[in-house]
Amino acid sequence: MVTLADLQVKTVGPSTITSPLASYVGGRTTNEYYVGADDRILFDDTVELVRSRGLPLDELPTFETGGPRELIHFDPATTRVGIVTCGGLCPGLNDVIRALVLELHEHYGVDDVLGFRNGYAGLVPESGLQPIPLTSEVVANIHERGGTMLGSSRGAQDVGTIVDTLQMRGLSILFVIGGDGSMRGAHRIAEECLRRGNGIAVVGVPKTIDNDIPHIGQSFGFQTAYARASQSIKAAKIEAEAAINGIGIVKVMGRHAGFIACYSALANHNADFVLIPEVPFALHGDNGLLAHIRRRVERDGNAVLVVAEGAGQEHLPVTDETDASGNRALGDIGRFLREVIREEWTARGEEVMLRYFSPGYFIRSVPADPADAVYCARLAQTAVHAAMAGRTDMVVGRRRHRFVHVPIEYVTHRAHGVSADGDLWLSVLESTSQPHDMT
Amino acid sequence: MVTLADLQVKTVGPSTITSPLASYVGGRTTNEYYVGADDRILFDDTVELVRSRGLPLDELPTFETGGPRELIHFDPATTRVGIVTCGGLCPGLNDVIRALVLELHEHYGVDDVLGFRNGYAGLVPESGLQPIPLTSEVVANIHERGGTMLGSSRGAQDVGTIVDTLQMRGLSILFVIGGDGSMRGAHRIAEECLRRGNGIAVVGVPKTIDNDIPHIGQSFGFQTAYARASQSIKAAKIEAEAAINGIGIVKVMGRHAGFIACYSALANHNADFVLIPEVPFALHGDNGLLAHIRRRVERDGNAVLVVAEGAGQEHLPVTDETDASGNRALGDIGRFLREVIREEWTARGEEVMLRYFSPGYFIRSVPADPADAVYCARLAQTAVHAAMAGRTDMVVGRRRHRFVHVPIEYVTHRAHGVSADGDLWLSVLESTSQPHDMT
Amino acid sequence: MVTLADLQVKTVGPSTITSPLASYVGGRTTNEYYVGADDRILFDDTVELVRSRGLPLDELPTFETGGPRELIHFDPATTRVGIVTCGGLCPGLNDVIRALVLELHEHYGVDDVLGFRNGYAGLVPESGLQPIPLTSEVVANIHERGGTMLGSSRGAQDVGTIVDTLQMRGLSILFVIGGDGSMRGAHRIAEECLRRGNGIAVVGVPKTIDNDIPHIGQSFGFQTAYARASQSIKAAKIEAEAAINGIGIVKVMGRHAGFIACYSALANHNADFVLIPEVPFALHGDNGLLAHIRRRVERDGNAVLVVAEGAGQEHLPVTDETDASGNRALGDIGRFLREVIREEWTARGEEVMLRYFSPGYFIRSVPADPADAVYCARLAQTAVHAAMAGRTDMVVGRRRHRFVHVPIEYVTHRAHGVSADGDLWLSVLESTSQPHDMT
Amino acid sequence: MVTLADLQVKTVGPSTITSPLASYVGGRTTNEYYVGADDRILFDDTVELVRSRGLPLDELPTFETGGPRELIHFDPATTRVGIVTCGGLCPGLNDVIRALVLELHEHYGVDDVLGFRNGYAGLVPESGLQPIPLTSEVVANIHERGGTMLGSSRGAQDVGTIVDTLQMRGLSILFVIGGDGSMRGAHRIAEECLRRGNGIAVVGVPKTIDNDIPHIGQSFGFQTAYARASQSIKAAKIEAEAAINGIGIVKVMGRHAGFIACYSALANHNADFVLIPEVPFALHGDNGLLAHIRRRVERDGNAVLVVAEGAGQEHLPVTDETDASGNRALGDIGRFLREVIREEWTARGEEVMLRYFSPGYFIRSVPADPADAVYCARLAQTAVHAAMAGRTDMVVGRRRHRFVHVPIEYVTHRAHGVSADGDLWLSVLESTSQPHDMT
Repeated sequence: MVTLADLQVKTVGPSTITSPLASYVGGRTTNEYYVGADDRILFDDTVELVRSRGLPLDELPTFETGGPRELIHFDPATTRVGIVTCGGLCPGLNDVIRALVLELHEHYGVDDVLGFRNGYAGLVPESGLQPIPLTSEVVANIHERGGTMLGSSRGAQDVGTIVDTLQMRGLSILFVIGGDGSMRGAHRIAEECLRRGNGIAVVGVPKTIDNDIPHIGQSFGFQTAYARASQSIKAAKIEAEAAINGIGIVKVMGRHAGFIACYSALANHNADFVLIPEVPFALHGDNGLLAHIRRRVERDGNAVLVVAEGAGQEHLPVTDETDASGNRALGDIGRFLREVIREEWTARGEEVMLRYFSPGYFIRSVPADPADAVYCARLAQTAVHAAMAGRTDMVVGRRRHRFVHVPIEYVTHRAHGVSADGDLWLSVLESTSQPHDMT
Repeated sequence: MVTLADLQVKTVGPSTITSPLASYVGGRTTNEYYVGADDRILFDDTVELVRSRGLPLDELPTFETGGPRELIHFDPATTRVGIVTCGGLCPGLNDVIRALVLELHEHYGVDDVLGFRNGYAGLVPESGLQPIPLTSEVVANIHERGGTMLGSSRGAQDVGTIVDTLQMRGLSILFVIGGDGSMRGAHRIAEECLRRGNGIAVVGVPKTIDNDIPHIGQSFGFQTAYARASQSIKAAKIEAEAAINGIGIVKVMGRHAGFIACYSALANHNADFVLIPEVPFALHGDNGLLAHIRRRVERDGNAVLVVAEGAGQEHLPVTDETDASGNRALGDIGRFLREVIREEWTARGEEVMLRYFSPGYFIRSVPADPADAVYCARLAQTAVHAAMAGRTDMVVGRRRHRFVHVPIEYVTHRAHGVSADGDLWLSVLESTSQPHDMT
Repeated sequence: MVTLADLQVKTVGPSTITSPLASYVGGRTTNEYYVGADDRILFDDTVELVRSRGLPLDELPTFETGGPRELIHFDPATTRVGIVTCGGLCPGLNDVIRALVLELHEHYGVDDVLGFRNGYAGLVPESGLQPIPLTSEVVANIHERGGTMLGSSRGAQDVGTIVDTLQMRGLSILFVIGGDGSMRGAHRIAEECLRRGNGIAVVGVPKTIDNDIPHIGQSFGFQTAYARASQSIKAAKIEAEAAINGIGIVKVMGRHAGFIACYSALANHNADFVLIPEVPFALHGDNGLLAHIRRRVERDGNAVLVVAEGAGQEHLPVTDETDASGNRALGDIGRFLREVIREEWTARGEEVMLRYFSPGYFIRSVPADPADAVYCARLAQTAVHAAMAGRTDMVVGRRRHRFVHVPIEYVTHRAHGVSADGDLWLSVLESTSQPHDMT
Repeated sequence: MVTLADLQVKTVGPSTITSPLASYVGGRTTNEYYVGADDRILFDDTVELVRSRGLPLDELPTFETGGPRELIHFDPATTRVGIVTCGGLCPGLNDVIRALVLELHEHYGVDDVLGFRNGYAGLVPESGLQPIPLTSEVVANIHERGGTMLGSSRGAQDVGTIVDTLQMRGLSILFVIGGDGSMRGAHRIAEECLRRGNGIAVVGVPKTIDNDIPHIGQSFGFQTAYARASQSIKAAKIEAEAAINGIGIVKVMGRHAGFIACYSALANHNADFVLIPEVPFALHGDNGLLAHIRRRVERDGNAVLVVAEGAGQEHLPVTDETDASGNRALGDIGRFLREVIREEWTARGEEVMLRYFSPGYFIRSVPADPADAVYCARLAQTAVHAAMAGRTDMVVGRRRHRFVHVPIEYVTHRAHGVSADGDLWLSVLESTSQPHDMT
C-alpha cells in the first residue's frame, strides 16, 4: 500500500532565496500564487479512501454516477424520444444529437426519435415548425458539419404549452441541449411533468461555449472554440510582428468568464496581455494597461492583447439594451481599447499599427475537434442511460473523470469563472509576463 | 452547505425492466458495466472533506503540489540549466522545450540554458554532439513545428559519464523529457548526483504517446496523436463505404495500452471493431472476430477495424527481436488480420475489398493541438518551479486537475492500460456496437 | 497530326429549345454568357502553331521565358543580394524569401544575402533598421509561419537614398516582394540604378492578395486567402441555417476586384449572393438586393451574402480619408448592409437573425497552402535565374503555365478585375442562383 | 497595341559567365533545362491573334468551348438524368455529384436525377443495386465528406446490358465520373446509344488522382491529394531530423506519372530525393542513388526520399499479378529501397534510423480543398451545359483557363507524365538539389 513517505519528493537542498517570480515590469508581490508548504494532493481515489477510513458514506454529499443500469424504467418498444437544441451555437451539438440517436437505436432499440426544430419554439404549435424523425441514417454524418441540424433559437416559451406538446406527441423522454437559460426552462418543464404525473423524463446536456457551468467539468465544445480563437491570436501576432510598433487586439467570447481568453492565449503563447472579466485593470497611470503596452512595444517591438468581451466593462458606458435571451448588452471593449490606444500613441506623435480581430461567431460554428467529439459522445451515452432509467430534472456532466448526474438546479444557479488566485490565471501570467495586478 | 439530499436526482418512476444493452450480435451479459445502486461520486474537494472530518491529514498519501514557491533553492544569477529530449517523437516536445526556456528566462531571469542533442547520446563525449544555447529568440517559434529541435535517440548511456558531463558543463538543473526508459535513466542520474552531493537537480517531464504513464493523468501529445489517428479511421470508413463488401483495417500505436485505439475510434464514431492489448479475442468460431466482421458487413455493407499494434499478439508467432530501447518486437497484427480476413472471404468465393492503413509515425511528428499546447506549457512551468525550488528525482504531472510532483520511481514501475471493466471501454463498446466479449 | 475533325464533339441531336438558364427569381436575359456557335479553343501550342504557319515570329509580342540560362551575368563568388518585403501581408511571403535564399545558395553558390527589415523603410538610414543575414539555416522553417520574417511597411521612401543604400551595402541584386505601389517603387529604383550605371539588378515578385495583377496569372497566396475566407462563409451559413430567418453577411477583401469574393463563394457553395465592385446592384425596388434577399429567405429559410469590401460603394457616403499607401478609404459596405437589412425587416415587424463576419486580416496571415507553396517556390526560382542573368526592372509571373519575365511597368499600369461577362462570374451566378442583374 | 518592343526586358549587362547550376554533388551538364535565347511566350490571346493574321480559322484544330447555349436539346420537363462514379476514390467526387444535381435543378429545372450505386455494377440488374434519387436536399452537404456518396467499383460490365438499363430507366443523360478505364467504358456506352439511336447523351467528368489525363489540364482532386501527401513528407523530415543518420522514405501514388511525387515534394521543400517513373536511376556506383543518399546524410545529417509507386520498377522482379482494373501489379519500390539502404549502412557497420511512410489511400479519401472544390463545381456546371445541349461521347476539361469539350477518345489514348526535360522536373531538381542524372 502506498504511504505518504513513498510519495515524498527529494530536494537537493534547502530553499532560502526569495523567488524573483513576477518581479518584472510593473510587478508587485504575488504571494497568493505561491504554493504553501502543506499543500498536497491526495493519492487515493476518494470513495475508497473514505470508506477505508470508516466514514458514514451515506451522509456525504455525492453525485449519482452515470452509466447503464441493469434495470431500466422505460420499455424500449414503446418509448418515443424528443431532442431539442436551444441557444447559441457551440461545437459538438450535432455530435450530441447523433450519439443520442445512435445510443437509443443501437443499445436500447429505441427507434422512435423526433428532433424538434429551432429550440423551444419548435415545442409550441404557434411556430408551425414540424419535428424531424431522427434515424441512424439521418444522423450518420451530421457531426462533420458545425451548428445544429435541428436549428436553434433563444428565449423561453410557455411551459404549459410545451408540456401539452410533449403529451400530444406521446413523448416519454425529452433531451434538452442548451445553456443556463435553457436549463432553467428544462427544469420548469420537468417540474410541470412531475406535477402532472405524465411520466415524461427531461434530461439535459448543458452547453456553454464560455465553459462556465458549475460542477460539471469542462463544457463540450470549449476546446474546439478556444483552439479556433487561438488562430486569431496567432494572426494578430504575425501582423504585429511584421509592423513597426504593431499592436494587435483580439476580442474573444466570454461575458462573465475568461476561460476562452485564458486557454486560447495559452494555446499558442502569442499573447502579451490577457484581459478577463474576473480581473479588473486600470487604463491610465504608471501601472495602467496603456503604460504596460507601451513598455512591451518598446521592449519587443509589438504587443498582442486578448480581451474577453466582458472584460473592462467598468471603463465603458452602461447600456440598457438586452438581447433575446435577456442578457444585458455589453459595451464593445475591443473597439474601445483600439481607440484609446490609438489616441495615446497619436497624442505622442508616434506611429502605431493597430489591428483588430473579432473572431466572434466564427469560433462556434465549426465541427467539434476530436477531443470534444469524444466527450460529446460520452455525455450523450450517459444521458441516454439516465433517461432510460427514468431519471428526470437532471443534467449529465463529468467530475473527477467520472460521468455523473446533476440536478438541473445545480447548474443554473450561478456561473463560475476564472479564479484570480488560481493556477490557470497564474499560467496565463507566466505565459504573457503581464503584471499580475494592473490596478 | 451542500448535503446529500440536495444532490438527489429525481426519477419519473421505478426501474423494473431488464436493460437490452449489449444484447446485440454475439452479445453476452455485461453486468460488469452496470452502475450499482450505491455508486456515487463525492461532491467535495477531497482535502477539505477529509480535514473537516477530522482525519490526520499528515498520514494520508498525498502528492506535493506543483507551482511557484516563495523561497527557492537556486540563485538565478548563477544557475545553468540543461534540457534533453529522449526516445520517440511525440507532439508537444518543442512546446515543452520552449516553455521551459521562456519560464526560466521571463520569470526567474535564468538565461543560461543548454539544449543537449539527440537524447542521452548528447550527454556523453563520445558522441561528439555539442549542446545548443537556448535563448528566447531560438525557441520563439519552434512549437509550430513537430518533432524536437534538439533531436532525440533511444537507449541508455553510462550514468557516471553523464554525471561527469553535467558537472563539467557546470549545470545546476537537468530537465529530461522522455518515456519510461528515459525516466529510469533520469532516476539513476538523479541518484548518482545525490550520491556525489553535486547539488544538481534532475526533473522529468514524462512523455508517452500511448498515454500509459501511471499517476500523472493524460500524457502530453496524446490528444494530438489520437486526433491524427482518427483521420485514418475516417479514411478507412470512407473507402469501405464506397466499396462492395469494403473492410478497412487501421493499425495504430499502442504496444501495451489501447488508449489511442479507443480515443481515436470514439473521436469520429467510424469504427466497427476496436482491438486492444488489454482485451483478448478469438479469431474463429461463431463468436470469433471473423464471424462478427462477416455479420457486420452483411448488415451494413462494410466494416472498419481499429487495431492497437499490441493487440492479438497471442495469434502471432513470438519473435526474439528487440528494438534499440530493448522492447520486444511485436508481430504485425494489422497485416496478419488483413491476410486472415482475405482468406476467409476468398475461401467462400465472395468478393471483398480490403484496405489497410498504418498511420504509424505519421501521428506523432505533428505540432501539438491547442489543448496539448496548453498542457505542455503548464507542465513545463511546473517543472521549472519544482527545479528552482531544489526538487530532484521527480517528474511533473496533473492529478484531479492539479499539477503535482511525483517521484520518478512512481512513473517507471508499471504501465497502466485501458480497464476492460471501465467506462472508457464501455463507451467504445457502445460506440462500435461490437460484442463486449469475443472469446 | 490532330485535325479539327478529330476534335469534333458529337451530339445526340439538334438544339432547338430555348435554355431556361437564369430565368429564376428576378432574372433577365443573360445572352452575354451564352457560348456562340463558333467559339472554340485552339489545340496546338501557340508558338509551334504560328511557326508552322510561316508568320514572322520576331514581330509578335512575346514574353521572355523564365528559367536558368547557360551564361549568367553575375559572378556568384562576388554577388551580394538583398531581399525586401513591402505592403500588406500575404500568404507565401516567407516561402518566397526562403526559396530565393535556397536557390541562390544551393544552385549558384551565392551565400551573401541580406534581408532588409520592414519594407523600403529598411533601405533608408533614418529608420535605423539593420538588415539580417539570411542563411540556409535561418530560413529553414520560416515557411511554416505566416507573415514575413523580414517585417513590412507601407509607403514610399526617397529613391536616391535607397539606391545610395544599395551601393553602400555593395549589393548586386535587389529582390522586391510587394504590391503595385511597391512595384512602382521598384521600377523607380531600377531606373535610377540603370541611370547611375551601378550595375545593380532589381527583380520583383509581385504580390496582391486580391489577385488583380495584370498579365501574370494567379498571384501567390490567393488560393490560401480565399480558402480561409470560405471558412467564414461556411460559418455564416451554419449560423443562418440554425436560426429562424437567419441572414449572414461576410465581408471579404477586394477593394477593386471581386476575386476573393467569387472564389471563396464557389469554394463551399454556401453563398446566396455575391457582391463585387465590378457589378453594381440596386438596394431597393422589386429587383433590388433587399427584395431578392427577402425572397431567398422566404424560399430557403435563410440567406448568406458575400460582400467584397469595394462593392456597392455607390450606396455609401464618399470619404476623403486615405491610408498609408495612399488608397482612398472605403465605406464599410458590410455594416451598412447589416443596418439596411435590419431596418427593412424591423419595419415589417418580422424577426430576423443577422450575423456579421469580417475575417479581414485573418485570411492573410496564415502559412501558404501547398499549392501556393509550390507556386511561391517556383516564382522565386525563376526570379533568381532572371537576376543572375542580369535582368532588371522586371517581375516574374506565370502565363499559360509557363514562367515569364514581365517588365515592371506592365504590372503597375492597371488592375484587372472579375469580368462581368466572363465565365468566372457566370459560375458564381450558377452557384448562388442570384439574379445576374440586380439594377 | 502591345508590341514586342514593349515587352522587352532590360538587362544590366551581358551574360558571359557559365552558370554553376547543377554542378553539385554528382552533377553533370544540364543543358536541356537552359532557356534558349529565342524562347518566348506569346502575349496575345491565340484566337484573336490568328484571326487578326488572316488565317483560315475553320481549319485549325480547336476544342469546342464549354458553357451554356442559348438553345438546348433536352426538354427539362421530361429529362431524366443518371450519375455514376467509377474506379478509385479521389477528392471532389461528391463536389461533382453535388454540382451536377444543383445545376440541373437550379438552372434547368431538371429534378429527376438518379444516382447509380457502385460504378458500372449499379447499371446492370445482376448487382441488385437500386439507384438513389438525388435531390437538392440529399446532396446539400455531401461535399463536406470525402469519398463518393454513390459508392464505386472497378471493372467493366456488359455494354449492351448497361444501355438496356439506361433505356429501361428512361434516362436522357448519363454522367460518368471516372478514370481512363471508366472513360473507355463511357465511350462504348455512348457509341452503343448512338448506334441504337436512343437519343441518350453520355458525358464524362474525367478523374485521376495521378493527374495524367491528356489535354484537360489539372485533374480535379489532384491539389488536395498532393497537399495531403506533403504532410507525410514533412513527417518523414521531422523524424529524420530528430535522429542520428535519419533517413525517411515516403511512397506516394503515381503508377506511370510522378506528378504527386513532384508537387508534394515542392509543397514543403522537405524532400532530398524525388524518384518518379519517368526518370530512371541507378542504385549502385558512385553516381547511384545509394551513394548520393550517403553523401546527403553526411552533409546534412539526414535525408528524405519521395518515391512514386511506379518509380524504379526496373530494380524489382516482374510480377504477373493484376488488379481488378487490369493494371499490372507493381513491385513495392518503397520497401525495396528501405531494405537496400538498410543493408548498405549495416554492411558498413554504421547506425541508421530508417522510417517508412506510405500514406496510400489516406490521401484520396479526404474532402476537396477549396481550390479543387471550385474546380469540381465548374467542371460539373460545364458538363451539365454540354449534356443539356445534346453533346455526347465527350468529357469536360480546362485548357488555357477555358472550359472545353473533348471527345472521350482523346482522354483515353495515352497518359502523359512528368517531362524529364520540363520546368516542373527542373523545379524539383532545384528544390531537392538532387543530381539531375543518377544513371
